[in-house]
Amino acid sequence: MEWQVNPTSGPQATKPKAASDYVDGQRLWQRHLDMARLGATGNGGVRRLALTAEDNEARGLLATWAANRNFDVSMDAIGNVFVRREGTDSHAAPVLTGSHLDSQPTGGKFDGTYGVLAALEALEAIDTAGFKTRRPIEVVSWTNEEGCRFVPGCTGSLVYRTPADLQRYLVIKDVEGISLGDAVRAAHAALPTIRQRPLGGPVWAFVEAHIEQGPELERQAKTIGAVTGIQGTRRFEITVHGEDAHAGTTPRRARKDALSAAVAMVAALEQLFYDKEDTVRFTVGRFEVWPNAPSVVPGKVFFTIDFRHPDDAVLTSLGDQVASICETNRKNSTVDVKQVIRTPPIKFPERIVAAVELAAQRLGLPTMRIASGAAHDAQNLFHLAPTGMIFVPCEKGISHNERENAQQADLTAGARVLADVILDLANE
Amino acid sequence: MEWQVNPTSGPQATKPKAASDYVDGQRLWQRHLDMARLGATGNGGVRRLALTAEDNEARGLLATWAANRNFDVSMDAIGNVFVRREGTDSHAAPVLTGSHLDSQPTGGKFDGTYGVLAALEALEAIDTAGFKTRRPIEVVSWTNEEGCRFVPGCTGSLVYRTPADLQRYLVIKDVEGISLGDAVRAAHAALPTIRQRPLGGPVWAFVEAHIEQGPELERQAKTIGAVTGIQGTRRFEITVHGEDAHAGTTPRRARKDALSAAVAMVAALEQLFYDKEDTVRFTVGRFEVWPNAPSVVPGKVFFTIDFRHPDDAVLTSLGDQVASICETNRKNSTVDVKQVIRTPPIKFPERIVAAVELAAQRLGLPTMRIASGAAHDAQNLFHLAPTGMIFVPCEKGISHNERENAQQADLTAGARVLADVILDLANE
Repeated sequence: MEWQVNPTSGPQATKPKAASDYVDGQRLWQRHLDMARLGATGNGGVRRLALTAEDNEARGLLATWAANRNFDVSMDAIGNVFVRREGTDSHAAPVLTGSHLDSQPTGGKFDGTYGVLAALEALEAIDTAGFKTRRPIEVVSWTNEEGCRFVPGCTGSLVYRTPADLQRYLVIKDVEGISLGDAVRAAHAALPTIRQRPLGGPVWAFVEAHIEQGPELERQAKTIGAVTGIQGTRRFEITVHGEDAHAGTTPRRARKDALSAAVAMVAALEQLFYDKEDTVRFTVGRFEVWPNAPSVVPGKVFFTIDFRHPDDAVLTSLGDQVASICETNRKNSTVDVKQVIRTPPIKFPERIVAAVELAAQRLGLPTMRIASGAAHDAQNLFHLAPTGMIFVPCEKGISHNERENAQQADLTAGARVLADVILDLANE
Repeated sequence: MEWQVNPTSGPQATKPKAASDYVDGQRLWQRHLDMARLGATGNGGVRRLALTAEDNEARGLLATWAANRNFDVSMDAIGNVFVRREGTDSHAAPVLTGSHLDSQPTGGKFDGTYGVLAALEALEAIDTAGFKTRRPIEVVSWTNEEGCRFVPGCTGSLVYRTPADLQRYLVIKDVEGISLGDAVRAAHAALPTIRQRPLGGPVWAFVEAHIEQGPELERQAKTIGAVTGIQGTRRFEITVHGEDAHAGTTPRRARKDALSAAVAMVAALEQLFYDKEDTVRFTVGRFEVWPNAPSVVPGKVFFTIDFRHPDDAVLTSLGDQVASICETNRKNSTVDVKQVIRTPPIKFPERIVAAVELAAQRLGLPTMRIASGAAHDAQNLFHLAPTGMIFVPCEKGISHNERENAQQADLTAGARVLADVILDLANE
């Protein structure tokens, strides 16, 4: 079997072993608990916004674990951290695997973190097994995937994909006015033992492990999801301009009530986006009102629309109606509709999907093909090299929530599949 | 004419003068401009929340003007400020006149402030004219009428009406956790020259001047509104509890989307409260969402309903349906509905309404009877003594808005009517 190339050691040298045999599920679990202390919310969740002190501590902890194995640790100009195990051909393009360590404001212990820790565990398993690989393997933690502190998200992988855009992203500011560039500089200063490395570089393949963040694997009692692709996203920002007025004195007919208009827009949009199949993902997640006082007719409302679908034609046909629906329902107010994100759906190459599926089957793990509802850094790496993802179940599909949970056995299984898949890729 | 009792001086001693003849419209206008500097927003408006540094400066400025006339200035345990001109019978219950100096977060220069400054102008006119009055006259500025910093509003007049409730109000906290009691203590400390006075006391009559905050006087080209009463108010707080979830992965059917439920509630409530006559005042003024992130299905929404009507039966029949409408539209979420304010409609005594009307007619000012759409401190004083209000027009009826505006001539006219009315009352 391909993943038994160069077995030079192992507990039972007489029987060929796979990299997955060396995955230490208990160590992987303990590292999730250790990481969860950095930014712990007290409700079992994590608040670890990108490039904050907590996030930099997480980088430091990852670097410490890597240094204990004598892996090389480096950080680039956007703050992405890389843990490298050398290949026999050090000039060959490396296999990359990883995810992100930043979280939502009230996030969980597993989103992103699992993909980084599973990658490190896979690398340690390969190393412990003594496999030499032709290509270097690099574990990566991408900067600001969640996009909570700096907008847009997936910043680290975006800039890795297009290094020429670096300056454009470094000037983005958080709500306190701190630029992403200053935050990266502070991370480099806080972590002097991590060497700086050039931005970007060739990639042979990228594989990202992640909790599903949806209910399908659990519902169908599958341990491994071979991810077929990521649905597309359109994000809109809608601003309704009415006029502040006194709640007790202003007749309905004289009002320019921005909230009343916004409510009519959202209700009409819900009708537009309703599909019996429940494939459309339509969310109004942010909704803010000015001046937001009980006795004042609202003069301004801002809200966001997050719309996702696996079919680009549907993304176009429904998304293109947002502006006219808002215009139709603006009542006496005016409305501005701005599209701020458009990411087309992507399909991962069949050979990576099949490799994940096959590795799971060989380990006797229940597996299924599944599409990703969430966005991931993999969608940027997709444009650089053959890319795929491995999903493991999370409890009730709950994510972006402090109650996010996963089973140790499932996390171990995902890391085992990852170890076998990347070992194969690293010998191509 | 009654208001010419005891004319002891005046520019034309040979011809009997009224108090209104001594009103200085230019001084009154200038004082509005001076007050508007305290908490000026930069857009021509005012942000002067109750008992903030800006509001305390406003108390101080009022006290300075009063002290220049040798009027007595005092402040009670809830922060109400009184400017007193003694009567010939110092034990007689005083005539009170005034309004409030606090504003909405993005309020105007005239709401409340006009009633205090018109009262001071009327008192100075009476004093300049040299009229002696049997009863003392007190100009009052009530604390926290707007109810923006501390909820509920009209706090100063509420506690003046029922001093036994003082402690219950002093523990109310603002969003930063500062109690009303601490804020009043800070005001006393910041204004050491204003003597402390006992809370409450007998009132002979109360008259409050105010901008209309609605469009009727302007529309009908009337300068003076003789206010017949104040419509009733019911205020509700609605909390919708859903569940945070990932916007990209969670199917619609699996969501407990608190915003979707809240939008359905508001849309259904708008239908319930729709009346062709446009007498109902229904407002959702505050609307807040958690966690308020574009890619997270909202797990919680809080919103307020402000419902006003002049007919108590309608207040009952419509208001009592709020809870069931919310329950019917809660979808997969749960909902709590709490009524936090219920104020019945009130009718001012005919003799005060007629006195305002007559004084205006004697001055040749176009006048009409008008109901108040807004709540005012007068509705608390109503329970203590014969009470009435004088409205003057404001531009396009716009209020609770930085663009709130009024004409100098109208403000002067209102102060003249007020001077004549209170002089009469003070001689009863």
